[in-house]
Amino acid sequence: MDSFFEPRSVAVVGASARPQSLGHVLLKNIIDGGFRGDIFPVNPRADSILGLRAYPSILDVESEVELAVIMIPSSVIIDVVGQCGRKGVKALVVISAGFSEAGNADLEAELLREAEKWGMRVIGPNCAGILNTGNSLFATIESRIRLGRIAFSTQSGALGGAILAWAENEGIGFSKFVSYGNQCDVDESDLLQYLGDDSETEVITLYIEGVKDGRKFFETAKRVAAVKPVIVMKGGMSETGAGAVQSHTGSLAGSGRMYRAVFAQTGLTYVNTIEEMFDMAKALVYQGRAEGGDVAVLTNSGGPAVMVSDELDELGLSVPEPIPGIKERLSFLPPFTSIRNPVDLTAGGSPENYAKVLEALFSQGQYDAGMVICVPPLSLDAAEVAKALVEAKSGIGKPVVTCFMAGQLVEEAVRILEESGIPNFPTPKRAARALSALVRRRR
Amino acid sequence: MDSFFEPRSVAVVGASARPQSLGHVLLKNIIDGGFRGDIFPVNPRADSILGLRAYPSILDVESEVELAVIMIPSSVIIDVVGQCGRKGVKALVVISAGFSEAGNADLEAELLREAEKWGMRVIGPNCAGILNTGNSLFATIESRIRLGRIAFSTQSGALGGAILAWAENEGIGFSKFVSYGNQCDVDESDLLQYLGDDSETEVITLYIEGVKDGRKFFETAKRVAAVKPVIVMKGGMSETGAGAVQSHTGSLAGSGRMYRAVFAQTGLTYVNTIEEMFDMAKALVYQGRAEGGDVAVLTNSGGPAVMVSDELDELGLSVPEPIPGIKERLSFLPPFTSIRNPVDLTAGGSPENYAKVLEALFSQGQYDAGMVICVPPLSLDAAEVAKALVEAKSGIGKPVVTCFMAGQLVEEAVRILEESGIPNFPTPKRAARALSALVRRRR
Repeated sequence: MDSFFEPRSVAVVGASARPQSLGHVLLKNIIDGGFRGDIFPVNPRADSILGLRAYPSILDVESEVELAVIMIPSSVIIDVVGQCGRKGVKALVVISAGFSEAGNADLEAELLREAEKWGMRVIGPNCAGILNTGNSLFATIESRIRLGRIAFSTQSGALGGAILAWAENEGIGFSKFVSYGNQCDVDESDLLQYLGDDSETEVITLYIEGVKDGRKFFETAKRVAAVKPVIVMKGGMSETGAGAVQSHTGSLAGSGRMYRAVFAQTGLTYVNTIEEMFDMAKALVYQGRAEGGDVAVLTNSGGPAVMVSDELDELGLSVPEPIPGIKERLSFLPPFTSIRNPVDLTAGGSPENYAKVLEALFSQGQYDAGMVICVPPLSLDAAEVAKALVEAKSGIGKPVVTCFMAGQLVEEAVRILEESGIPNFPTPKRAARALSALVRRRR
Repeated sequence: MDSFFEPRSVAVVGASARPQSLGHVLLKNIIDGGFRGDIFPVNPRADSILGLRAYPSILDVESEVELAVIMIPSSVIIDVVGQCGRKGVKALVVISAGFSEAGNADLEAELLREAEKWGMRVIGPNCAGILNTGNSLFATIESRIRLGRIAFSTQSGALGGAILAWAENEGIGFSKFVSYGNQCDVDESDLLQYLGDDSETEVITLYIEGVKDGRKFFETAKRVAAVKPVIVMKGGMSETGAGAVQSHTGSLAGSGRMYRAVFAQTGLTYVNTIEEMFDMAKALVYQGRAEGGDVAVLTNSGGPAVMVSDELDELGLSVPEPIPGIKERLSFLPPFTSIRNPVDLTAGGSPENYAKVLEALFSQGQYDAGMVICVPPLSLDAAEVAKALVEAKSGIGKPVVTCFMAGQLVEEAVRILEESGIPNFPTPKRAARALSALVRRRR
């Protein structure tokens, strides 16, 4: 699999000089992304593309080619795969469509046979490509994204691309991205295992519609989930959705109940929405696992604290009252403060009090994780609260997430928090769900 | 209630010249908001504030005062209320805190008695104020917002303010906002009835923690929900959350099950998250109700269509196959297109095809509502798709919502859609849930 994600050289077969064409976008992504190995555009009707010499055929390239990314009509694919084989290419990413998803299962089988003949592995066909931010390889037709520690593997290329664009807007970075399309050879389990072994990936996120080999997936999932968090979103959990899957990728979606059981037994975290998947991934990357499910909530506003309490309860986490040792340390607070849990500072929510109360709450080893809510009144500078929290948090060895709410009033505060590794979420419920991902379920 | 929302004159008792103080923010909001009636700052220690003459007492104002907004220490409230009464004020919004929420239930009862003596109605105390965008009255300490057709009534002032700021970022406008705090006099049911009768409000959104008078709320909710959509979010649905409510507003939260039953019986739409509340409200304001639950889905990407199908199924809506008359009209599509439902245009998703297929789907009266998904590949201009859809939609008398996904790539398209009254949602599941709000449940 290293030939896919860590190649020394890449050929772009079907590179095009025509802007807007996918063959152009692909080559441009690889060049502009800053790939440090050799890049060889292959196109019989061009001498050079985007400033690079173009080759009529991959066989005309003088140096070695490790990875070939292919974006040509499916009608000529078999010849081209044969040429790649003779050239000694190790890995193929076939972006071209027109295979089993369009009723041409025979052509897809022939593609696989030809690749196997030469010992080449294949990702695709009918996919959006792969990327590895760690070595600046952007072999994809999707937009480029920032470096991070989340890997994302997706069966749907377009949804994958839309999610990357959405994540970029949310400031989320990725270690690896792979759209595997029809998975004629490399399948979701191979990729899951690879990402499980990848030291640059801390959290794995998956979008799957149907699994190719159930037993293999079950065993891989169990193995990988024991090592790092795996969060999965599954299309086609309902009957209606399963019908849509069939006409989308031709996969059998299987029953939603069966999948839920598989996810639970293997230790995968099943989520229902895109936000939830990346909120959880962000919380895990920034803060790591909690040891248990006892959560301390600190707020300056009752409403969001109520919403968080409801959600934590539904998620099976606890919001227990502070033990006497903590209450004693909180006795400096003004009398109108509620020193139950949530601790509600109300108007007493100064930066100093936020910091002192957070330290007090984690002074006795009672709580496993913390949630800090701040809805700044106009008289409170949210950025100052953020700075105080960042300092207080540094002495606490437990995960803490925040919910600073109020649009533009908290933008600077959120930047300060997230630059210091404290993840912020825009609503109380999203913060609660993200926090729940840090707690390993007792089974 | 008109004296609250349509007053001819407003006194700001406790107006302050000190920036950052709430008494300053409040007065500034009223002035900068463009209130067209008279504004009288009241403060014994200032001659003028923000360019307006200040009065030592409300009794010194020569003209009539209809509404007084009060932001003074609770210790002097009774005197001031008495002065308002003698002045002939009709309505009081008491923003000041320090009443039953801080253990001073007696003082709150006295405040109410004093107001009743003079025939004045009271919103608050311990609230964030009210606003009416229709006549530019911003009698609130929260940030100002844009005009719209959604009313929002909230028990929690801080949460309300955070939601207003969030909604402003999302481009959502409001007709009325009211934070009613301790509701010593005017309660959630009075406000619900008022908003039900308000011609500038098309959809009502509520955040409640505990209801003051159960029977009154039940009857009001039933009456109002028969006239316009009411969407409710309830804090304290779990035991943990109910505990947090008690220490927040001192309300009894009641059991979640009981509230769910009340909402179902009265026809209120219960939601779990802030996003859901305003996604639904936006869909209702932009598109109005659907006649039934048969939904046509049009897409250029399989993955999001699968997610939408799953969600619609879970919400009890149908995604039935097109009848033969429609299929015939779709026969112009290229052979790789799926003309089941969802109709997946894949690479054939040109602006023209989007428009023609949308028209065909609604040509036979089969469907009650539509969802259009677009995940633009780099070769497709999403804004052109949006323009084509807006034109096609104009001939279709059914609600349609969209999910144009891909961050900045669809920003222009989303602007075009929403300016034409077609609401867009950032993820497939949010779009599906918003659409579900248009379907009146068969009971």
